[in-house]
Amino acid sequence: MPHLKSTIEFHVPEPTLRRLPWYLAFAKLALQQGESFLSSTRIAKSIAVDASMVAKDLSFVKISGRTRVGYDVNELIAVLEHFLGFTDSHQAYLFGVGNLGGALMHDNGLQQFGMEIKAGFDVKQELTGTSINHIPIHHIDKFTELQQQTGIHIGILTVPVNKAQEVSDIMVKGGIKAIWNFTPYRIVVPENVIVQNTSIYAHLAVMYNRLNALKELDL
Amino acid sequence: MPHLKSTIEFHVPEPTLRRLPWYLAFAKLALQQGESFLSSTRIAKSIAVDASMVAKDLSFVKISGRTRVGYDVNELIAVLEHFLGFTDSHQAYLFGVGNLGGALMHDNGLQQFGMEIKAGFDVKQELTGTSINHIPIHHIDKFTELQQQTGIHIGILTVPVNKAQEVSDIMVKGGIKAIWNFTPYRIVVPENVIVQNTSIYAHLAVMYNRLNALKELDL
Repeated sequence: MPHLKSTIEFHVPEPTLRRLPWYLAFAKLALQQGESFLSSTRIAKSIAVDASMVAKDLSFVKISGRTRVGYDVNELIAVLEHFLGFTDSHQAYLFGVGNLGGALMHDNGLQQFGMEIKAGFDVKQELTGTSINHIPIHHIDKFTELQQQTGIHIGILTVPVNKAQEVSDIMVKGGIKAIWNFTPYRIVVPENVIVQNTSIYAHLAVMYNRLNALKELDL
Repeated sequence: MPHLKSTIEFHVPEPTLRRLPWYLAFAKLALQQGESFLSSTRIAKSIAVDASMVAKDLSFVKISGRTRVGYDVNELIAVLEHFLGFTDSHQAYLFGVGNLGGALMHDNGLQQFGMEIKAGFDVKQELTGTSINHIPIHHIDKFTELQQQTGIHIGILTVPVNKAQEVSDIMVKGGIKAIWNFTPYRIVVPENVIVQNTSIYAHLAVMYNRLNALKELDL
């Protein structure tokens, strides 16, 4: 591993990468409604964001609009899906076959976004040898061996919070290069390992708080 | 409904509400490891955020630390869980029993964060009368009637993207006050309706992009 400077600089900003799927979703809807062209102004207005931001975000994607008519909808969809990696196949392992882990293994929708869970790992002996939605579950002790055979380097972390750091250490040591972290724990990893935090439960706190505040305002 | 100004101002900032669950997770881990007190510096160091931010975030919560020793861990956990609404019971309806919707109905972990899904709604006749994980599934036509009986005002939106706006309109009209939106579509709602966007697939785009960038850098 080469010596790393403190922060790797990426070409495409994370907020842009998080917004591009919005434009993709909107373009798909527009196509379904029979539209052929979309301007960035039109996209911006429909999803309530700033038009200059849409244009800037789309400048990272290799697509050019036509004066006055905008982007060809079919082309926009194809280019965005490719750019976002949704048309590739990304194989992944899942760590922690509990409630949320099992739920994600049930979710075939992930495949539409290019993600295929190839196996689940857990410490529970009673899960070993079983499967969910045709995805086999192995004891975590088998992970390193299987990783060496498959070269899979995306890991989904759905273990209990008190095991998050320990299991992510095992993942990294065994060859995982990107961790999709669903635990509310802020795991610490080497700088050349990608972490995406998707703590869905944290969003509940925001929702509960806002609901209470509205109640107090009597809205 | 009173006339609303363009933006409702909430007391607790959203970034704070999203970070507080991190501190809660860390406090639970510390308790398990036998620690009795935690300083904001200690929390900050362990989860790699700024100490002044931790102190500021915790200032919204009614808890006071002791000089030199910090916060009592048990008290910190209890106060945070209460403040975040995780100890209350929040009943919710789920709209769109597809892959992700079904997966969320399978996820008993939601209950640990105070959320209980009481029913799923879908347009598919063949789902009507069935259940997932003991949660009944009804035709969406029954929603308004059931809502009036139960008063449930949290809705989880997991319909296909091209139905997101249409179904959220139905939800709002039928009495839903907070929408947990799992679709990548930016729904438009009246200002006194809360929306929390949790587009888990959008995070995949960031992860794929970062992985490719690292490959190109040969890290």
